[in-house]
Amino acid sequence: MKTILSLGAGRSSSVLIAYLLREAAANNWKIIVGDISVEAARERVGASHHGEAIRFDVNDEHTSKKTIAQADVVISLMPAHFHPIVATYCLALNKHLLTASYVSDEMKALDYEARQKGLLLLNECGLDPGIDHMSAMQVIDRIKQQGGKLISFESFTGGLIAPETDPENPWRYKFTWNPRNVVMAGQGTAKYIQQGEYKYIPYQQLFTRITPVHVAGYGDYEGYANRDSLKYIDTYQLEGIQTMLRGTLRNKGFCSAWNILVQLGCCDDTYKMEGVAAMTHRSFINAFVEAETNVSLEQRLVKHFSIQLDGPEITRLRWSGLFDDEPVGLNNGTPAQILEYILNKKWKLNEGDNDFIVMWHRFIYELKGKHHEIQASLIARGEDATHTAMAKTVGLPLGIAAKLLLQNKITSRGVAIPVSPEFYIPILDELKTLGVELTEVEK
Amino acid sequence: MKTILSLGAGRSSSVLIAYLLREAAANNWKIIVGDISVEAARERVGASHHGEAIRFDVNDEHTSKKTIAQADVVISLMPAHFHPIVATYCLALNKHLLTASYVSDEMKALDYEARQKGLLLLNECGLDPGIDHMSAMQVIDRIKQQGGKLISFESFTGGLIAPETDPENPWRYKFTWNPRNVVMAGQGTAKYIQQGEYKYIPYQQLFTRITPVHVAGYGDYEGYANRDSLKYIDTYQLEGIQTMLRGTLRNKGFCSAWNILVQLGCCDDTYKMEGVAAMTHRSFINAFVEAETNVSLEQRLVKHFSIQLDGPEITRLRWSGLFDDEPVGLNNGTPAQILEYILNKKWKLNEGDNDFIVMWHRFIYELKGKHHEIQASLIARGEDATHTAMAKTVGLPLGIAAKLLLQNKITSRGVAIPVSPEFYIPILDELKTLGVELTEVEK
Repeated sequence: MKTILSLGAGRSSSVLIAYLLREAAANNWKIIVGDISVEAARERVGASHHGEAIRFDVNDEHTSKKTIAQADVVISLMPAHFHPIVATYCLALNKHLLTASYVSDEMKALDYEARQKGLLLLNECGLDPGIDHMSAMQVIDRIKQQGGKLISFESFTGGLIAPETDPENPWRYKFTWNPRNVVMAGQGTAKYIQQGEYKYIPYQQLFTRITPVHVAGYGDYEGYANRDSLKYIDTYQLEGIQTMLRGTLRNKGFCSAWNILVQLGCCDDTYKMEGVAAMTHRSFINAFVEAETNVSLEQRLVKHFSIQLDGPEITRLRWSGLFDDEPVGLNNGTPAQILEYILNKKWKLNEGDNDFIVMWHRFIYELKGKHHEIQASLIARGEDATHTAMAKTVGLPLGIAAKLLLQNKITSRGVAIPVSPEFYIPILDELKTLGVELTEVEK
Repeated sequence: MKTILSLGAGRSSSVLIAYLLREAAANNWKIIVGDISVEAARERVGASHHGEAIRFDVNDEHTSKKTIAQADVVISLMPAHFHPIVATYCLALNKHLLTASYVSDEMKALDYEARQKGLLLLNECGLDPGIDHMSAMQVIDRIKQQGGKLISFESFTGGLIAPETDPENPWRYKFTWNPRNVVMAGQGTAKYIQQGEYKYIPYQQLFTRITPVHVAGYGDYEGYANRDSLKYIDTYQLEGIQTMLRGTLRNKGFCSAWNILVQLGCCDDTYKMEGVAAMTHRSFINAFVEAETNVSLEQRLVKHFSIQLDGPEITRLRWSGLFDDEPVGLNNGTPAQILEYILNKKWKLNEGDNDFIVMWHRFIYELKGKHHEIQASLIARGEDATHTAMAKTVGLPLGIAAKLLLQNKITSRGVAIPVSPEFYIPILDELKTLGVELTEVEK
């Protein structure tokens, strides 16, 4: 009997574990679910006879290794910084490891040892990164096989909220993933290639340099650039490509409003503010705006940023309660911590809220002297606040990859990401049967 | 015979060493000038019989201490990060130390030992910090003695160029001090108090949040906030003050043009750019602007930033050669390093260029139920590219403080800055005889 150890039993693991338990019943596997909270693990396993819930503390090396020793393959949905630790345990015990996180430098350093031992350390096998790689490579390889040459590749993915969720919310956004990451998003410099030139976008410009995205039947979105699009030129084997841009998708109007918070300095996490205990939402924002006697905070923002009082930026800030005299409710904090806390009052995913994933690729290529354009998009909708679209699209690729590995259908070894046909063909095929599928349009 | 050891023989030391040599002749002192380049030290000493030039390498502890042992007081104009090292040597050998640099945490940590040994470690005794502290405290103490209550204090200082220097230069600015510091200026968050509220300005807003400054007879300037105005509330004993802002002065129009470079990300020092060897000034700027077929770089900037093609920002960037197809001339570099290198082609202080210091304070206070305002300003003009206004206003306060110390007229001990009358009265008095003087206007 084969055993899969699945680590991390938070909300994002719900669909993965349900999938693994179903497959366990069909294939006579055993699923061990480990989490620092054994209650959380028990909740995920439920009444299944194929699952076992255990407490898993990655910092307890001895017990962690005893647990990993029982498994044939390990899946980790724990916070990304734990992955290199789990990976060293897996290497010591000759086990494969699958994650949905970006390949870190520490992970990369384990490649040689993993190859020597014939083990797979698969990363970036969730949604973004994950399905984006697989669906892009499927189209890119097809274009190459037809003799075409890719000129431009742009790809944006966003975790949003479904149209019927919180319809008054002008941001069309809630925290469907780590709130801190949302508040800190984009700090640093985004690097990409456009029309054959290296381009750099500093944080202060990121939310003003947006790509409009229209998905037929769904509406208008906008994308801002991710930190490093350059590293995937190698990975995707696109040397010489003229435009290469990966980014994050939001509903139209999000970026110009978020940009006000960025410009004000509300996302800064480098210093603690003064007087937080007595701070209100309004006085938080006011700390970033020049004083002017007898001019309201809203009017000062309007004047400073050349925006409209009834415009989309002020409307979104007002809806978020940022002009309210409500106490923040913290005793200390950085601007980013305080902003996250205030936003969470309106942006927390409630029971009944459904999340909504939009992924969009645009490929421009030359074939027989003519330019062609393909747009591919994926829409995924959550079922409820636990079985989210995020949990589905992050978890299912991992679950399917684990199954393929146990069935000896994956030959890649070492530190890998799912960009080759042996991953993307069977994973995208099975995702389609589970309702997760990209739609292509030729333009 | 008393001996002064003066460390650092760069351009900024010219007026200090000339002053010390004159005073040495009058008082029968000996002046030792030390620098890592003995030639530089020799050039400063010239033919004076009262001076001796030596090589001084702060990292050579043994020789450094032998040199310091000969002195009664040490003055350092070396780069600021060397000061804590020199200070520990001085403490070990029971010598006073004077610098024009901000008190660092390492320096602050030496306060107790210096007091125990009866030694003075005087810092911030140059121009800014230095004359700004002294001239401000003179007015502040006078207002207090009159029974007045200070409501607001704003202070800006800038090292500019004289009106007759480089009259075509629309920035009215050249590198009269460390060019790297100019390019990196303002990174971080500026903190101050305005109308009784803590205010925070992130880097991306710094050059848009300016204070207009008019100096009668000289013209219009603008000030942007320094990193930390809050710490001087304690130092100046201004608890409860409503507005406290210290900053940097530039000619009118500088900030909006510099802001374009900040917004583009040209001052970023955190990553190396690609393809620097083949880069031109124009392609450097282009790397920070979105591509658009058949639209010139200038037009794209105009559109993105809502500025005018013939407006003050584009005019300044164009004058700096930033749109030229001239090769940069570097093989690699961060954006900040490349920008500094390009700007230095036009902003280097040439023979015949005179620098120009403007300091401006505004005090608003309440006395007998009425509000009063005093503006105080200082203008200093360089004599040539060596005897700059910067060298004069940084060096003379240090030289005078050294003289007062040798004459036993200074009783302060420990880590200090010149904010008490025993410093500011005699130093400002002697500066006046040397042509350095603030003018006060009641508004």
